[in-house]
Amino acid sequence: MKSFQTISELRTYLAAGRKRGSKVSFVPTMGALHAGHKACIDIARREGGILVSSIFVNPTQFGPAEDFDAYPRPVEEDTAGLLQWGCDAVFLPSVREMYEREQRVWVEAGCLADVLCGKHRAGHFRGVATVVAKLFHIVEPHVAVFGQKDAQQAIIIREMARQLNMPVAILLCPTVREPDGLAVSSRNRYLSKEDRAAAAGLYAGLRHGKALLESGEREARAITESVRRYLTGAGILGTEYVELLNAEDLSPTDPVAGRVLLAAAARIGSTRLIDNIVLEVRDGVRETMLF
Amino acid sequence: MKSFQTISELRTYLAAGRKRGSKVSFVPTMGALHAGHKACIDIARREGGILVSSIFVNPTQFGPAEDFDAYPRPVEEDTAGLLQWGCDAVFLPSVREMYEREQRVWVEAGCLADVLCGKHRAGHFRGVATVVAKLFHIVEPHVAVFGQKDAQQAIIIREMARQLNMPVAILLCPTVREPDGLAVSSRNRYLSKEDRAAAAGLYAGLRHGKALLESGEREARAITESVRRYLTGAGILGTEYVELLNAEDLSPTDPVAGRVLLAAAARIGSTRLIDNIVLEVRDGVRETMLF
Repeated sequence: MKSFQTISELRTYLAAGRKRGSKVSFVPTMGALHAGHKACIDIARREGGILVSSIFVNPTQFGPAEDFDAYPRPVEEDTAGLLQWGCDAVFLPSVREMYEREQRVWVEAGCLADVLCGKHRAGHFRGVATVVAKLFHIVEPHVAVFGQKDAQQAIIIREMARQLNMPVAILLCPTVREPDGLAVSSRNRYLSKEDRAAAAGLYAGLRHGKALLESGEREARAITESVRRYLTGAGILGTEYVELLNAEDLSPTDPVAGRVLLAAAARIGSTRLIDNIVLEVRDGVRETMLF
Repeated sequence: MKSFQTISELRTYLAAGRKRGSKVSFVPTMGALHAGHKACIDIARREGGILVSSIFVNPTQFGPAEDFDAYPRPVEEDTAGLLQWGCDAVFLPSVREMYEREQRVWVEAGCLADVLCGKHRAGHFRGVATVVAKLFHIVEPHVAVFGQKDAQQAIIIREMARQLNMPVAILLCPTVREPDGLAVSSRNRYLSKEDRAAAAGLYAGLRHGKALLESGEREARAITESVRRYLTGAGILGTEYVELLNAEDLSPTDPVAGRVLLAAAARIGSTRLIDNIVLEVRDGVRETMLF
């Protein structure tokens, strides 16, 4: 596996591959890799071509009070994992390589960034969309894979690619879960033993919401309020939001119908976790993918 | 010359060319072509590869009270011109082809868009940056050429390409002028005979500003105020702005030093015209290019 720290060296390597007729499949990450990243890379590998991953903890998507400095950076384990998972190349740029000067040009996702996590993390999705646009222009992949766990991010990236006519297909990878249902996440390693036990309640709360829909409930607020109460009962006191939205464009859905996103964010101890399920709600209720 | 109205047909044509090893050079336009566009195309041709131009009057860069509907669209003359100037292909998309649904994802240029024309045309440069990003993703050129007459646009496009790591070089084309100094512009055709005579005063005003710098004046406000008075004296009563800014980042320059942009906008009759000169101000004063 090749490893690159500069944009120009990575571009030279990829240009040589393209000259031989290879396409490029891409999985951008912030490192601290886990089974969710491996699942993304497995999907990217099936698309063929040069398989590139990036590890970059992107400062512009962290708020001033967030965990940018503390974010885990186990670079050696990460690169060993990418090698084992069959990556051809990893891009490991410094902050200075990615942001030579103060960023003035931003990709903004408008109303898609105003709800859910965007409401609680000002500027987060502007940072995400901008760094992903940068990475796409550097790597020029024909496909890129994102995890459904970060549902709003996936929706925004897909919309960015569509509305800016980027020549890249955005593929979605299902959320990978621990046996008790907790979605795997780089931030799970922050959890104390007690918090880890409570954290499983987040997914259980989403299942509770699904059960309500299955029982015929269609009022969005009745469901999200009931999920909130469920979370409190499960010992999760720091619920930030529980929302049930149209899965295509994050608009309200009430009465609940069609493809919907049931998403929650909660602070467990000092760790902020998010999770979601996507449901196709017609006469019956069926779990499905965001896209 | 090939002509394409859909993104997918243009992409198929360009992909075939790329397979044969061709690069692509690109001149985006809003049509109503004139000698300034020809000069851009001449520069693009020297860069080699498939020479593509686009004609698209972009609605998202016009304000609600601006001349989107009235903007000239002499499509037959324009395509005849492009053929004569040696273009290989022209892209003529409809508004619906470029904006399938309501645009939610925008490229924003921050403080670069807050001054000069950006202060007077809310949302203009957001529309410009976004449509150019779209066109770049559709055409995937290795070089694209923009005219210096739209100096702020050129600075913003260059900064977008740099800061989003777009794999395209932005080249600048000098302003083409009529014998009396008026910068050629698609909007000149709106001018009545009287207004056309007055319009030459805009460039004369900029030359007056240059003369002040040559005489040793270095106070920005003294120069811009004197240019304003000159314009009034020349019968241009609708001056919108006269500004003297750093040509790299459009920040203030006072005392005036280094590479500076002396830019003016004025309404002449009902037609809004802009013009600028770029000066290298050290011990002496030398006219130069924006970049």
